[in-house]
Amino acid sequence: MLHGSSWSPTEKKIARSVFDAALQSELADLIAQVRETAATLSTADELWDLQELLHRRRREISDKYDYRYPRLELLFVWLLRERRIALAQLQGLKPERLARIESVLAQALCDEERGAGAGQDDPAPR
Amino acid sequence: MLHGSSWSPTEKKIARSVFDAALQSELADLIAQVRETAATLSTADELWDLQELLHRRRREISDKYDYRYPRLELLFVWLLRERRIALAQLQGLKPERLARIESVLAQALCDEERGAGAGQDDPAPR
Repeated sequence: MLHGSSWSPTEKKIARSVFDAALQSELADLIAQVRETAATLSTADELWDLQELLHRRRREISDKYDYRYPRLELLFVWLLRERRIALAQLQGLKPERLARIESVLAQALCDEERGAGAGQDDPAPR
Repeated sequence: MLHGSSWSPTEKKIARSVFDAALQSELADLIAQVRETAATLSTADELWDLQELLHRRRREISDKYDYRYPRLELLFVWLLRERRIALAQLQGLKPERLARIESVLAQALCDEERGAGAGQDDPAPR
């Protein structure tokens, strides 16, 4: 189970800092993407594509960055998996929590690799 | 009543052309606004303001540009009132239709002026 033990004050401070930095980094990426897309905007289709992108990303970011302690370990696994954060940033969390996060991450990466390998080994029949 | 008489083929052609030109002009204005806004985007608040602007304007434009004949006369009054189109573009519509459009437009402008005048003459009590 990945909601685990209660968070000490030190852990809460680390968690908040990592959470905030990841969110700011994700927003900065989106802002850069929107600036780049908007700079060459010329048709109504492109305009509504941008509207849909912003609508979707706002909902995704709002769902993803949900600062509730029972959900934080899974969020950190997610952020590690997409390389939004590094393991070093989580140093200072309880060892058993770090172990849980690393174990779930390893499993996820393993599944990912196996999925990619299966795709190569078993081509779809023609 | 502003849904009036049926539209002849010539009138339909004029209406479609004026409708399309107005819609393209409104979209071009919005694209310019979005490009300008996005160029200086730097905070999450500004990003979500842009998302809300696009969401709202898409709904407004979709509601406004509703190509159904019973609604076209009122749309043309609206477009004339905001100077998106000129009366000259509607030449070729039936005289009684043009007269209705001009009459409703005059009434709207008169109400507008009276509203602005009333604001000046009757200051709110302190």
